[in-house]
Amino acid sequence: MKVAVLAGGVGGARMALGFAEIVPPGDLSIIVNVGDDDRFHGLYVCPDLDTVLYTLSGVVDRTQSWGVADDSTRALEVLRKLDSPGGWMKLGDADLGLHLYRTSRLAQGASLTAVTEEVSHRFGVHCALLPASDEECPTMVEAATGLLRFQEWFVRDRASPTVKQLGFQAARKARITDRVRASLLAADLVVLAPSNPYLSILPMLEIGGMRDALQQAPGLKVAVSPLIGGRAIKGPLVKLMSDLGAGSSNSDIAASYSDFADAFVVDEGDSRDVANVSHQGALRVAAMPTLIPDAPRAEELARRLLDFASTRRTTGAAG
Amino acid sequence: MKVAVLAGGVGGARMALGFAEIVPPGDLSIIVNVGDDDRFHGLYVCPDLDTVLYTLSGVVDRTQSWGVADDSTRALEVLRKLDSPGGWMKLGDADLGLHLYRTSRLAQGASLTAVTEEVSHRFGVHCALLPASDEECPTMVEAATGLLRFQEWFVRDRASPTVKQLGFQAARKARITDRVRASLLAADLVVLAPSNPYLSILPMLEIGGMRDALQQAPGLKVAVSPLIGGRAIKGPLVKLMSDLGAGSSNSDIAASYSDFADAFVVDEGDSRDVANVSHQGALRVAAMPTLIPDAPRAEELARRLLDFASTRRTTGAAG
Repeated sequence: MKVAVLAGGVGGARMALGFAEIVPPGDLSIIVNVGDDDRFHGLYVCPDLDTVLYTLSGVVDRTQSWGVADDSTRALEVLRKLDSPGGWMKLGDADLGLHLYRTSRLAQGASLTAVTEEVSHRFGVHCALLPASDEECPTMVEAATGLLRFQEWFVRDRASPTVKQLGFQAARKARITDRVRASLLAADLVVLAPSNPYLSILPMLEIGGMRDALQQAPGLKVAVSPLIGGRAIKGPLVKLMSDLGAGSSNSDIAASYSDFADAFVVDEGDSRDVANVSHQGALRVAAMPTLIPDAPRAEELARRLLDFASTRRTTGAAG
Repeated sequence: MKVAVLAGGVGGARMALGFAEIVPPGDLSIIVNVGDDDRFHGLYVCPDLDTVLYTLSGVVDRTQSWGVADDSTRALEVLRKLDSPGGWMKLGDADLGLHLYRTSRLAQGASLTAVTEEVSHRFGVHCALLPASDEECPTMVEAATGLLRFQEWFVRDRASPTVKQLGFQAARKARITDRVRASLLAADLVVLAPSNPYLSILPMLEIGGMRDALQQAPGLKVAVSPLIGGRAIKGPLVKLMSDLGAGSSNSDIAASYSDFADAFVVDEGDSRDVANVSHQGALRVAAMPTLIPDAPRAEELARRLLDFASTRRTTGAAG
């Protein structure tokens, strides 16, 4: 069964890890948010792509769930001493090696897709790790304190300023890559990982061609809720949804995917939400253990999603 | 007394350190070779400027006499894993912080002189650290194995391929900076540090405007020989001079500076050379302890050179 996963940062990386354990690499595509990407000290940094890469290759820092384990910050200390702008962005030394390589290759004219493929293979990751777009499409944050780039709001300002609106202008002008489109159309199962819907998934959905490809994709399209007991495991989701007046329930999240999703998965502890969400259109709703703090539990969720997709196919064939 | 020092790598950095101990920072300019500068992984690396900076600021690795003490190489290990070209160039992590800052500022349009000044001040170095030129003027090595960039020959190939000729085409098209020229014209004493004459000093002399400025400079111009007992303390000088058919004696080195130098200093152990060199034109020759493995001995040599210049001035006044 061919699987495509739309992934943001930590939640997306864990979901990808689960599938990587049980799906042959040639059948697995991880489509990754690039709305968080930005330049620091002249280097092109792709936090979500790197979190997925480090997680899949096993070098990730397991305490913070991003960056390289036991990394040092000597270069950053010098940059801070030199008062280089953006010194608040934590970039480890090993991490910088990757950013240097990527920036150098991009400057030579290689696409982000091509560079990511080179890097993945060298890191021993053999599924397709695909940036959602090869174009720059930074998510902008219209905050109470002014218009901020995503990392300024998220890292520098610790996601504290109230968000009035998110800006996806660049994403709307950009296009998904041919490989992203092809992997969505070829997939038997498309999974929206339990990443932040507004900061990780929506920035991908807004990229030119993404919703079209998802609507046309013939496989089962399942969104996994990032909420467990009404809260996000990590990150500023609930506060952000409240800031945006977007509602912060499973029903609200499901609604934002209803134009293309076939099914919505809530945590097994939130099975009372199944009925609520089911009222929304034709969306099938299932409850599964969505807490995936480690590889075995991510693998278990991936297996449940594959089973869910198989059942649906069998049902489809029988009906 | 205002002092300007022309410096290459390690020998130049030590000579600079000696003067920095006894000359007020406002009266001291260190003019540094940029012929070794090159790009690695997209970063602009200036080995001689950095060796002088690290030496003067006290962060230098005292074992190898270049780079930052106790630096790590995590970024480089990742770059090597990614097979990034130029992985043979040893760049430490703290070192990379500086290269990142410099490259970023150059990309913003700052001159190498301006960036070097920003960096020196942040490193607590308050004398003027001046790149010989703001233009790129890479020294090329026409070797038996082909045309090589300096660092390819020196680091990658360990200075092993026989050198047929050195290429200074870029230097000849470039210009010294206004600050270099002004510091030479203002100096009471101009010192050519005991750096490699062919690889560190000549690349500066070949830059447009440098020999003119040296000829016009009214101060005493003293070249310190890098030879001690006929050998260089560090680096491939003697083999290189033999390759180039340039001769490898103090007389040969003195001859290469004879169009502007007033005096030539040999090591006190080589005082027999004083008479040989003295035969060359109007060059005054003196013997001093030129082995400067540490700050106290570098300071002692600097003091001797200042005394030498004072005596000459007094003599001049008396004559």
